[in-house]
Amino acid sequence: MYWDLLGYGTSMVAIAVALFLGYYVNKTEPGTERMREIAHAIHEGARAFLKIQDIYLMIFVVIMAIALSLTLGVLVSIAYVFGAIFSMIAGIIGMEVAVRANVRTTYAALKEGVRKSFLVAYLGGTVMGLMVVGSALAGITLFYDLFNDFQVLLGFSLGASSVALFTKAGGGIYTKTADIAADLVGKVELGLPEDDPRNPAVIADNVGDNVGDVAGMASDLYDSYVASIIAAMVIGYEMAANLGSSPLYIYFPIVIAAGGIIATLIGLSWVKIHKHEDPGASLNRITLIAVITYIIILYAFVWWFKANWAIFYATAAGLLAGALMGITTDYYTSIDKKPTQKIAEASVTGTAVNILMGFSYGIMSIVPGTIGVAIAMIFAWYISIHFNLYPIYGIAIAAIGMLGIVGTIVSADAYGPIADNAKGIAEQADLKEDIISLLDRLDAAGNTAKAITKGFAIGAAALTVIALFAAYAEIVDLQLLVNVGENVTVDPNKILNLVHPNIVAGLLIGAMMPPVISAMLILAVSRNTEVMIEDIRNQVKEKPGIIEGTEKPDYARCVSIAEKGALKELIIPGITATIAPILTGIFLGVRALAAFLAGSIATGFIFALFMANSGGAWDNAKKYIEDGHFGGKGSEAHKAAVVGDTVGDPFKDTAGPTLNTMITVMSLIASTFAPIIALIAFFP
Amino acid sequence: MYWDLLGYGTSMVAIAVALFLGYYVNKTEPGTERMREIAHAIHEGARAFLKIQDIYLMIFVVIMAIALSLTLGVLVSIAYVFGAIFSMIAGIIGMEVAVRANVRTTYAALKEGVRKSFLVAYLGGTVMGLMVVGSALAGITLFYDLFNDFQVLLGFSLGASSVALFTKAGGGIYTKTADIAADLVGKVELGLPEDDPRNPAVIADNVGDNVGDVAGMASDLYDSYVASIIAAMVIGYEMAANLGSSPLYIYFPIVIAAGGIIATLIGLSWVKIHKHEDPGASLNRITLIAVITYIIILYAFVWWFKANWAIFYATAAGLLAGALMGITTDYYTSIDKKPTQKIAEASVTGTAVNILMGFSYGIMSIVPGTIGVAIAMIFAWYISIHFNLYPIYGIAIAAIGMLGIVGTIVSADAYGPIADNAKGIAEQADLKEDIISLLDRLDAAGNTAKAITKGFAIGAAALTVIALFAAYAEIVDLQLLVNVGENVTVDPNKILNLVHPNIVAGLLIGAMMPPVISAMLILAVSRNTEVMIEDIRNQVKEKPGIIEGTEKPDYARCVSIAEKGALKELIIPGITATIAPILTGIFLGVRALAAFLAGSIATGFIFALFMANSGGAWDNAKKYIEDGHFGGKGSEAHKAAVVGDTVGDPFKDTAGPTLNTMITVMSLIASTFAPIIALIAFFP
Repeated sequence: MYWDLLGYGTSMVAIAVALFLGYYVNKTEPGTERMREIAHAIHEGARAFLKIQDIYLMIFVVIMAIALSLTLGVLVSIAYVFGAIFSMIAGIIGMEVAVRANVRTTYAALKEGVRKSFLVAYLGGTVMGLMVVGSALAGITLFYDLFNDFQVLLGFSLGASSVALFTKAGGGIYTKTADIAADLVGKVELGLPEDDPRNPAVIADNVGDNVGDVAGMASDLYDSYVASIIAAMVIGYEMAANLGSSPLYIYFPIVIAAGGIIATLIGLSWVKIHKHEDPGASLNRITLIAVITYIIILYAFVWWFKANWAIFYATAAGLLAGALMGITTDYYTSIDKKPTQKIAEASVTGTAVNILMGFSYGIMSIVPGTIGVAIAMIFAWYISIHFNLYPIYGIAIAAIGMLGIVGTIVSADAYGPIADNAKGIAEQADLKEDIISLLDRLDAAGNTAKAITKGFAIGAAALTVIALFAAYAEIVDLQLLVNVGENVTVDPNKILNLVHPNIVAGLLIGAMMPPVISAMLILAVSRNTEVMIEDIRNQVKEKPGIIEGTEKPDYARCVSIAEKGALKELIIPGITATIAPILTGIFLGVRALAAFLAGSIATGFIFALFMANSGGAWDNAKKYIEDGHFGGKGSEAHKAAVVGDTVGDPFKDTAGPTLNTMITVMSLIASTFAPIIALIAFFP
Repeated sequence: MYWDLLGYGTSMVAIAVALFLGYYVNKTEPGTERMREIAHAIHEGARAFLKIQDIYLMIFVVIMAIALSLTLGVLVSIAYVFGAIFSMIAGIIGMEVAVRANVRTTYAALKEGVRKSFLVAYLGGTVMGLMVVGSALAGITLFYDLFNDFQVLLGFSLGASSVALFTKAGGGIYTKTADIAADLVGKVELGLPEDDPRNPAVIADNVGDNVGDVAGMASDLYDSYVASIIAAMVIGYEMAANLGSSPLYIYFPIVIAAGGIIATLIGLSWVKIHKHEDPGASLNRITLIAVITYIIILYAFVWWFKANWAIFYATAAGLLAGALMGITTDYYTSIDKKPTQKIAEASVTGTAVNILMGFSYGIMSIVPGTIGVAIAMIFAWYISIHFNLYPIYGIAIAAIGMLGIVGTIVSADAYGPIADNAKGIAEQADLKEDIISLLDRLDAAGNTAKAITKGFAIGAAALTVIALFAAYAEIVDLQLLVNVGENVTVDPNKILNLVHPNIVAGLLIGAMMPPVISAMLILAVSRNTEVMIEDIRNQVKEKPGIIEGTEKPDYARCVSIAEKGALKELIIPGITATIAPILTGIFLGVRALAAFLAGSIATGFIFALFMANSGGAWDNAKKYIEDGHFGGKGSEAHKAAVVGDTVGDPFKDTAGPTLNTMITVMSLIASTFAPIIALIAFFP
């Protein structure tokens, strides 16, 4: 039925287009010597960090690979290593292009104006987007084709997630350490403007944008994307084994994903901005076209493969829920909307009220998303029953629906830090005010796109882990009890019965994990920031010429502090997330572990969304004041808003995004190790 | 078997002792004219607030009573009204004594020194403690004796909880509006010291301590206490009906509670402080004696009533878990411990780092409590199975164990605001520095006691709602599946199976409720504070003599703003908490409603604990700096810590404590309306 053709074909096309676009971006003029010098420093820093991070990662991957080959066999272990490597390569190539695109965006703005500048930034981001979907789908198709075994596929997914956890947590700590330190000492104590070359932390800050936002977000979505496809495939295997379903349901997730890549490529061909158009409108147009194309392709594929029609409706429901999350995030974080402006207004009353407002609006923002995900899930279930499809499969498919156009999402997301960096380079290179304000427009569009994609990413992660939860339930053979109305004979040990203390305990402990990991990461940022602040103060003291502009600060020292701190600090949260599900399973049983996953999904979703949105709202409340409201820059209100923004930094860029990955990792660990855990657990 | 004698006897003795102590405190010298004048203003303000709040409450109670009598019959409705009235009366009497005890504590410090002063403050608090347990147990015993029907008992409990929800939310908004406004304008803008009579909000602030901390905390624990006893009784009814158990298990919770009152009275007889003793040590001694006595009495009662020994062990496990929560809270919020001092140190780096640290340590503090509650619950279950007791009953009993000595807890808790007020009155009356520092010692002891009792209260609420969750499961007839190892025949609609979208949706929506209600309450405080700040600024502008001390501010205006705002703002969160479980039940089914409760327990526990402990830690980090560390008062670090303290105010005194009550109310609503919901729900 050509599923393999679709899987290999679309992924290869995606990778080929990505490489071509990378080549195109690289061919663009790299700018003046001063600009190239700054870009080079950022490039070096980012590369140095990724290199050391990847060494750490490889050590972790090797340990895990040994553990996997001892417990689950060599094939799973090999798949795990490949999952990790594919994810790393996608991240490295994407980032290499992004750090080249930034300076070229600046130069294009200087020489050719907004249209070319936007094009360079967006295409730079697209390299990352296409690399992510291409390498992910290629890997899945290959491993399915070669081994046709769901344990192997889970291994591949776990490999991708391990990388994501480290990149998200490490990159998140790195970027916010540098950002907060640069702000607190540079802006507040020394009175330097943003991105001033006299600030010793400025390069570390720019590097952070790349390692945190580009590489981090990419591996986050890579991980969700792979996990959502494989969760559905695992359920497809169980359907074939237990219900005698067609193998179509095993490989159809690959077909759905291939459709998404086609839609992304079609959307991409519309990239351009009209003369006086807002760059944000262009980003939204690309997304909209991709969504519509995707729905049409899905319809065609379901018809062509003679698949169950419930699949079409479930995918559409997932897409809609994702769009709702994006819109909500936009409402709660956009500079033009009430919540952000209320937070800005509250800054007049004082810092504390700004903090309280931002915190509260962030929490209020979880309501539509939660209800949207709940409705999508219930809809996918009952529409599946209606069309006589195994209902758990319908839920898993909804998650893929949400993630289908992930190529478009990652492209828009990677565009953000490229534009941000381009602006930074322009400022450090002392370009004229109109160039900076042009790049500022590109940057602002990036911020909105980032907020929307973040909401999307969190929603996708939530549905993915619900699918993984279902896959886990299938693997440990929990009974579904779909057919209601008549009594059935069951083994009580096969039911995830919430009226049991082990199950409730699993739920409570699982619910505790996401906030606790968040707190660990925020404490890590706080500790690391204090070290860097100390260093910046020392640098300025040692060389008084730095502030006068006669001496150059030692940028590398700040880069190295951010780097070492991030790598040191990610170990404990990383290990905690890896070990907690295994310990819960062993001490409380495999059913308690299922409840653990459910609990972690509930709070993981809440915290990821609230932290992302609070952070976004604080950020834009500050920008709203800087636009001249409530006293403008330098007023008391502005000082309050700066504190809010700083509090929001690790919320939205360290803890929040790591949670997505963390709940995926925990779900995958549970599914992968389930057979072993069931053997040695103290409770059934 | 004398259970009625114990129920009536101990509750009557408790009420009699409370009235006698109230008389004794009232007979103590009320102080100089200036002191009485200040105390009078506080008294008036508190009384005015309670009066209006009780009018609002009565309207709500009447509406609910009508709804209950139309759906569940007149008896349930009557019990509901009595539960509400008993709780209100306990609150009113306790607060009337507390607002008399404050000025008498000040005067005793002036005339007779620390020992008498401590005695007046503690006995004033004890009136509240004994009124709470006395009236609660009297009501439960009476309604059980008269009607012997669990629906009626649930009605009584729901009445008490409705009052608690309003008092906690209303009082919490009131007290923090006044506190934050008084701080932000008074201290920061006008540079006035704490409790300065020139601050227009000073009386509102003092009133707030009484309505929020005394009346609020009392009704919170009243509510948990009643709910824990009645949850166990409901399960006892189900055991008698379905398993043919002895009626002993229905009334034994009353016996356990009576034992707790005896232990509280014995602990109380040890109240005194030695000459150079820390008042905090004395409070801890009273608690310790009550705990030990309680365990001995329990042992004796189980033996005398020939009850199941599992009851003894389960109660002890509950008590231990409660103690663990108290100790954890103390560690994370005490001024002598690492977390608070680290937060203080972080204030040197800046406000944002202070906020991030306090937030993170508050979250870290949930770990021991969560694991402790999980272990207590699992232990109670398996020890019950071991002794052949219905295991759900064992869990309910563990909750009563935690709440047995609630009389002691409330006494220590009410002592805090009395000492706080006494210090405030001393400052407003310009007493000498040594008297103020003496009262400061009493106040500091109160803060620690308050932190410990808060941890205790949250743990108790968590176990209570787990017991209520179990009671709900019994009422809607969910199957337990205790006997494992062999297949059983079940009705799938009777199993709370977590692998079902409605159940997962219920869990997600339930988990969303506590954070959302918290955010609503914090936004309410923010809004209300802005109004009051505006008014204070206007007052100072209208009468310039206020700051010079030649004109008196209009205290009543601030009192009225706090009052009106609090009452207006509590309506929406109150109604949301009441209606959400009913809507979930109707739209997703009674099993989804059970999962809703489980989700709300998980996040309710997490948010209540984290908010209380973050708030406490921020508060003490500020005090630590004020003690002369990191630059002391007036330094940049101090300013940062003041912001942290202000952010923590609504965390620890509005949102956090309301959550306890909210999850109890939602559980009781679910249990009480279960028969109706089951009839009209869209899903089984």
